[in-house]
Amino acid sequence: MRDLNAIGRIGIGNRGAVTRLVFSIKELRSRQVLIHLMRQAGLTVRIDVIGNIFGRFEGSDPRAPAVLAGSHLDTVIHGGKYDGPVGVIGALEAVRTISENKIRVRSPLEVVCFVGEESSRFGFSTLGSSLAAGEVHADDLTHAVDPQGTKLENVLASLGITRRNLKSMRRDPKTLKAYLELHIEQGPILEAKGKRIGLVTSIAAPSRFRIILKGRADHSGTTPMNMRKDALVASAQLIEYIEKVCRQYASMEKGRVVGTVGAIKVEPGVINAVPGRAELAVDIRGTSAQSKNRVARLVKQQARVIAKKRGIGVEVLNIREEDPVPLDKRLLRLTRELCDEKQINYEIMPSGAGHDAMQMAKITPAGMIFVPSKRGISHNPLEWTDPKDIALGAQLLMETMVRVANEEL
Amino acid sequence: MRDLNAIGRIGIGNRGAVTRLVFSIKELRSRQVLIHLMRQAGLTVRIDVIGNIFGRFEGSDPRAPAVLAGSHLDTVIHGGKYDGPVGVIGALEAVRTISENKIRVRSPLEVVCFVGEESSRFGFSTLGSSLAAGEVHADDLTHAVDPQGTKLENVLASLGITRRNLKSMRRDPKTLKAYLELHIEQGPILEAKGKRIGLVTSIAAPSRFRIILKGRADHSGTTPMNMRKDALVASAQLIEYIEKVCRQYASMEKGRVVGTVGAIKVEPGVINAVPGRAELAVDIRGTSAQSKNRVARLVKQQARVIAKKRGIGVEVLNIREEDPVPLDKRLLRLTRELCDEKQINYEIMPSGAGHDAMQMAKITPAGMIFVPSKRGISHNPLEWTDPKDIALGAQLLMETMVRVANEEL
Repeated sequence: MRDLNAIGRIGIGNRGAVTRLVFSIKELRSRQVLIHLMRQAGLTVRIDVIGNIFGRFEGSDPRAPAVLAGSHLDTVIHGGKYDGPVGVIGALEAVRTISENKIRVRSPLEVVCFVGEESSRFGFSTLGSSLAAGEVHADDLTHAVDPQGTKLENVLASLGITRRNLKSMRRDPKTLKAYLELHIEQGPILEAKGKRIGLVTSIAAPSRFRIILKGRADHSGTTPMNMRKDALVASAQLIEYIEKVCRQYASMEKGRVVGTVGAIKVEPGVINAVPGRAELAVDIRGTSAQSKNRVARLVKQQARVIAKKRGIGVEVLNIREEDPVPLDKRLLRLTRELCDEKQINYEIMPSGAGHDAMQMAKITPAGMIFVPSKRGISHNPLEWTDPKDIALGAQLLMETMVRVANEEL
Repeated sequence: MRDLNAIGRIGIGNRGAVTRLVFSIKELRSRQVLIHLMRQAGLTVRIDVIGNIFGRFEGSDPRAPAVLAGSHLDTVIHGGKYDGPVGVIGALEAVRTISENKIRVRSPLEVVCFVGEESSRFGFSTLGSSLAAGEVHADDLTHAVDPQGTKLENVLASLGITRRNLKSMRRDPKTLKAYLELHIEQGPILEAKGKRIGLVTSIAAPSRFRIILKGRADHSGTTPMNMRKDALVASAQLIEYIEKVCRQYASMEKGRVVGTVGAIKVEPGVINAVPGRAELAVDIRGTSAQSKNRVARLVKQQARVIAKKRGIGVEVLNIREEDPVPLDKRLLRLTRELCDEKQINYEIMPSGAGHDAMQMAKITPAGMIFVPSKRGISHNPLEWTDPKDIALGAQLLMETMVRVANEEL
């Protein structure tokens, strides 16, 4: 908790809001503090070209593949102090405990901090882990620009990373035995169910698109109701539909689909004009690619039905299309056994949010451990997790690391 | 038409859209052009504290009360070039014609341009005419804020207008004989009925209010559908209800009620967060005060029902509450006689839109003349009226002004 709070003070502002955007001075400082802590703990520190930090603790067999555990230190704008650091400091504490207690491990252990997990600056998420997994493609960088106009591509170039050597940071899967990530839930489920630990089955991925409804702007006083082409009333019908259809696909079996219209912009957007144009930002997620894609299709289809009925135009702009990532079943079984042994109250659950684990899962077995978020709040200064739960999560992470390091998976 | 086009070019942008928001540089420039045109026409120009412009042409009896005619030059965002200017330039052309043709008038004539008829900037309509009629109350200013956060009250203060001297601009009714306003219809009725002139019986008035729905901002990926407090889905239900209830009160007998949500703002307003707060700008109008007020009440009531059902908060901020304004019956009879004499195809009709005439009607007999709007379009770059109809309207205005100036009303 002392180290977690030390990291949490870097970039702290009004009302406890923490802002450490990727490649900002604050974020770089948090990485330097971590390097210091790793060295203090006797770990061998390696930093790759993008800035991912690996702190290695040797086991009895230096040639065995390593067990990695970590997360990220960058934050959203005005975020909290636990989203990310809990997994990095939790892994560090696990390795320190193993080291101090001289617990035998065969495989080497590595504490890892990935660069730029949050998309808040460049609209590009899990940057460091994507590069470590060799999953960044030149085209992905095209639209990654921060609000000041700085291109991610130029930042990478200043570090010596070009479109040609994007795969050079890829970690050889043969050097890896597993990746484990402790993280706050960022949702309300564990608290609501009174569980202290969440064991993650898979990571939901979003379909994101914009729907533009094109009606006709008219005078709000002189245009009879039956002569209007109101783009906002059409949007309202679609927004209600999205809630309805997502509720139909909300169950675990149906793929835990959630759908959100997070932003809406109407034009002209004044009190005395019928809205002639409305633009909706839609985010559909689910743990089943099939269900998520079906709901996204239904929503787009319904937009066309509503538009046709009202005699207005419609346009769909796809932003991002990702598939859910299943995590490793054997790691899940192992953590589950550990929870059962220790009589920890746990929940088997998918992750609605994206994490570095979904990139690492592409090159090694990956598992995630969640600890409860108070009132489900995250990306917010009010983000909070009981220190006792953080400790429990770190302990479970430690025991999992030891088992994985010593056993055949 | 030349002068009308000169005004129309001020603030013109893409696709012919005209934007001259009240107190913007563009709007001030249009006022300066008008002052220039008035002086060219030999009128004596007086500008009151808020910026209303009066261009006076003396009749044979300088002590007789004046016949005023005019409208406004400010526009909505991305509006057209005729809403407002047709009445100001039409009145100027009428007085120029009277002057050039040395037509005798007993009463003085005044061409008037009122400041800020549109509510697009501060959500406050007929600002200049309300002040000229002494109809602005200190409380009306409380919620008048533009999207940049500038308070109307502060703008007024910078002109020397405080809560204490709001009545100081009131025009003494004894100095007025009548107010006449030529305006485009801004609706589809004249075109649909094949009429060239509309004679206005009364002006429908709006109830305007903001509804703020307060849910909870949550992560769009981790928050299950049934644990959300989505302020936008709640808004969507209310927007649909407004359309439904207004359709029930749409007939002439039921008071020609129309209702519009013209603006909506959600927070945080990002694609990956459930909207925690939504603010709707609602405008309800009707020619029957009773129907309009009933619908406004039903909408506010429904907002509370929806909020309660969804376990979220609701707040209603009243912006403006006006009653429909009947115009002067004798002026209506006079314009009707003139139309009959000249065999002009006219329609007796209410105005769905608000106009400066509804404020002036509180201190002097007021009348309005409409000319057709193509496809009923207004508050839009496609706003268009046939120049022949504008000319006919201006001529009818001129003849009415002469009659009123020379006759006992």
